[in-house]
Amino acid sequence: MASETGNESVFTWAAPPIKFGLGALDEIGAEAVAQGAARCLVLTDPRVRETGTADRVRDSITAAGVKAEVYDGVATEPTDESIEAAVEFAQDRESDCFVAVGGGSVIDTAKAVNLLTSHPGTLLDFVTPPIGGGKAPWLPLKPLIAVPTTAGTGSESTTICVVDLLRLHLKAGVSHPSLRPSLAVIDPLTTVTMPPAVTAASGMDVLSHALESYTSVPFDAKPAPEDPRSRPAFCGSNPISDVWCEMALGLVGKYLRRAVLNGRDIEARYQLALASTYAGTGFGNAGTHLPHANAYPVAGAVRDYQARDYPPMPMVPHGQAVSSTAAAVFRWTYPADPGRHLRAAELLSGRTFTTTDGRDALPDVLAELMRDIAMPAGLRSFGYTVDDIDQLVEGTLKQTRQLAVVPRPVTRDDLDEIFTASL
Amino acid sequence: MASETGNESVFTWAAPPIKFGLGALDEIGAEAVAQGAARCLVLTDPRVRETGTADRVRDSITAAGVKAEVYDGVATEPTDESIEAAVEFAQDRESDCFVAVGGGSVIDTAKAVNLLTSHPGTLLDFVTPPIGGGKAPWLPLKPLIAVPTTAGTGSESTTICVVDLLRLHLKAGVSHPSLRPSLAVIDPLTTVTMPPAVTAASGMDVLSHALESYTSVPFDAKPAPEDPRSRPAFCGSNPISDVWCEMALGLVGKYLRRAVLNGRDIEARYQLALASTYAGTGFGNAGTHLPHANAYPVAGAVRDYQARDYPPMPMVPHGQAVSSTAAAVFRWTYPADPGRHLRAAELLSGRTFTTTDGRDALPDVLAELMRDIAMPAGLRSFGYTVDDIDQLVEGTLKQTRQLAVVPRPVTRDDLDEIFTASL
Repeated sequence: MASETGNESVFTWAAPPIKFGLGALDEIGAEAVAQGAARCLVLTDPRVRETGTADRVRDSITAAGVKAEVYDGVATEPTDESIEAAVEFAQDRESDCFVAVGGGSVIDTAKAVNLLTSHPGTLLDFVTPPIGGGKAPWLPLKPLIAVPTTAGTGSESTTICVVDLLRLHLKAGVSHPSLRPSLAVIDPLTTVTMPPAVTAASGMDVLSHALESYTSVPFDAKPAPEDPRSRPAFCGSNPISDVWCEMALGLVGKYLRRAVLNGRDIEARYQLALASTYAGTGFGNAGTHLPHANAYPVAGAVRDYQARDYPPMPMVPHGQAVSSTAAAVFRWTYPADPGRHLRAAELLSGRTFTTTDGRDALPDVLAELMRDIAMPAGLRSFGYTVDDIDQLVEGTLKQTRQLAVVPRPVTRDDLDEIFTASL
Repeated sequence: MASETGNESVFTWAAPPIKFGLGALDEIGAEAVAQGAARCLVLTDPRVRETGTADRVRDSITAAGVKAEVYDGVATEPTDESIEAAVEFAQDRESDCFVAVGGGSVIDTAKAVNLLTSHPGTLLDFVTPPIGGGKAPWLPLKPLIAVPTTAGTGSESTTICVVDLLRLHLKAGVSHPSLRPSLAVIDPLTTVTMPPAVTAASGMDVLSHALESYTSVPFDAKPAPEDPRSRPAFCGSNPISDVWCEMALGLVGKYLRRAVLNGRDIEARYQLALASTYAGTGFGNAGTHLPHANAYPVAGAVRDYQARDYPPMPMVPHGQAVSSTAAAVFRWTYPADPGRHLRAAELLSGRTFTTTDGRDALPDVLAELMRDIAMPAGLRSFGYTVDDIDQLVEGTLKQTRQLAVVPRPVTRDDLDEIFTASL
């Protein structure tokens, strides 16, 4: 709907039903029954399976009288190929309910499996243009119960599935309301076994979801769509999303260091699981912008970087990729809304800032936090040099979904400057 | 799930998708199409129809190529009889989508119509025990788009339908997740025509939703259910509900006086519409307690009270009934959590309070606000005397859903004292 200025005047917001608490994991059987399931497929990855969490979920489901089987072949950063393998496995099983137990990789894979077992075609048909065909699902999907185990992804709240397109050497997303999980079950106890570097990267992902949504373009600063049906799912910052982002920032600032330094700090784990849920609920509607757009080529073009506490393969974990350009991005977005940038710095640090502190306040607070939790600082840590900047810029320019909510007009030169400052 | 103390450790939360903004009303046609509707029934009441809002909604639907008809026979406070009439009308139409345009009465009626056109039986079969049969819906319901026009009810967010059972002389509720609307469309411009007394009562209803949920028993202070499926939809205060309630209290404190004194104050109307949405999302999960429990007999036993700006019939408007015992209730609940009562007083007034101000702080802030917006003060305004107290206490004792989340054990004597202090 257009206001008198021709600007957008409407925002939309949605979140899945949430079940949250210590021990919530053991109620998944009851939830599968409530979804009318007869045969569940539990998707997970080998590392989560090792912790016993996926088998506990399967046992809870079978104890409730519903058939259940575990597929543990999900890749740490899902690719079109790893998703095809999961789809093939699922197609033989005729499951009527999917249960995703893991981080963003697992939940995103489950969304793709749900989509591709109910529709003809390939993942690329549904990927956001210009990379993919941009098709919208037209058939009903099965119930999907998301059980995040990382306090990071937020994927349990969103309509997005992010995938590494191996043949194209880049990451891209599929997004549609029907991909949103039917239910999110969050048990903070599942996050206790995460090693420090994984906790740090996941926490920075939460922070980035909240901070990007909070500073994304206001929903009413964009032109109104001609047809309400063409309004994007990510509508920019809005009064409802803002609330959740502020709450999430406060909790990350207060508890992330504690959880990294002492993984058994249950209070910190509990509050970070809440923060992740809050941030997912916020960014799932407002949308992320440059740090996430930049993260796709940063992760996609990796050569031989090996992240501590992650599987032995060349990979930039999503939370590290997202954080790597955050300070430079927020120094650049500062003029779009100085008040919000200073408020975010306050929420993260507990200190007070004024416009005298200016555009350095938030980047400084971020750098301080990242130092304390031993996050890699700069793109050079991943092996990138000035020679890679052009390729990274190209990759970012393809992320139209994120570019649509950047709070100021962004040029190729701006991106060049941001990547260079982030080396 | 039980914690080591045998207490509850899990809470649940859910809200409908929300579309919010100036002009959102004209997008209902597109939403009916998105719900796959072929024939919509728009439910409203004669007063809302007079404003033209219901016909605008119908026109938006037909312009989108979907058949639509208006039923404007909803009663101002719905009764079993008025609902039966609406069900009869709907049954002849074979609608595949309901659109409720109005206040809580209209949205609640639409929920009941959706239930009773898809299930055999009467409303009483589904009413919460001990009053009714407590049946749960077992068949799928149709999509229901809720379009609140009062910035009060919160019914667009909840699973509840409240009805006046004429033959039993009391109000009671039906509650089930499947009654929650499929979508809430909130256009603050629809509230501009509300007269001052209706704005005041609706605003106090918002306030009461937020305040009761915020001070309800904490979810983890109750015993765990033996079976997660028997966990009530209203689980007591919890970290997600708290966020919504605090936001709503701040907005009501800041904008309710402005909207009552100047109905054309668009900023105030906008912020109160947001407050109502926030509060609905909060109380739809935590639950309301004594002020709402008391409101049922207060409204149900009315003799000849005629409220200003309401239709000419004996009736205590819901917002007035809810407010009538609030001060006494919150003086009595104060010891359960002094910090929250003082925080609520601060959010509503913008002033600072300490435990030295004690249990009078919140009741005083409420009395001050109610004076400023000309709300009736005390049960005597509605014609009640000491002779009615026994009947009112009896009525409250039947409201088991609300009594379950009162933050301290409540006896017949407590209720007697609260009603007497509220005369």
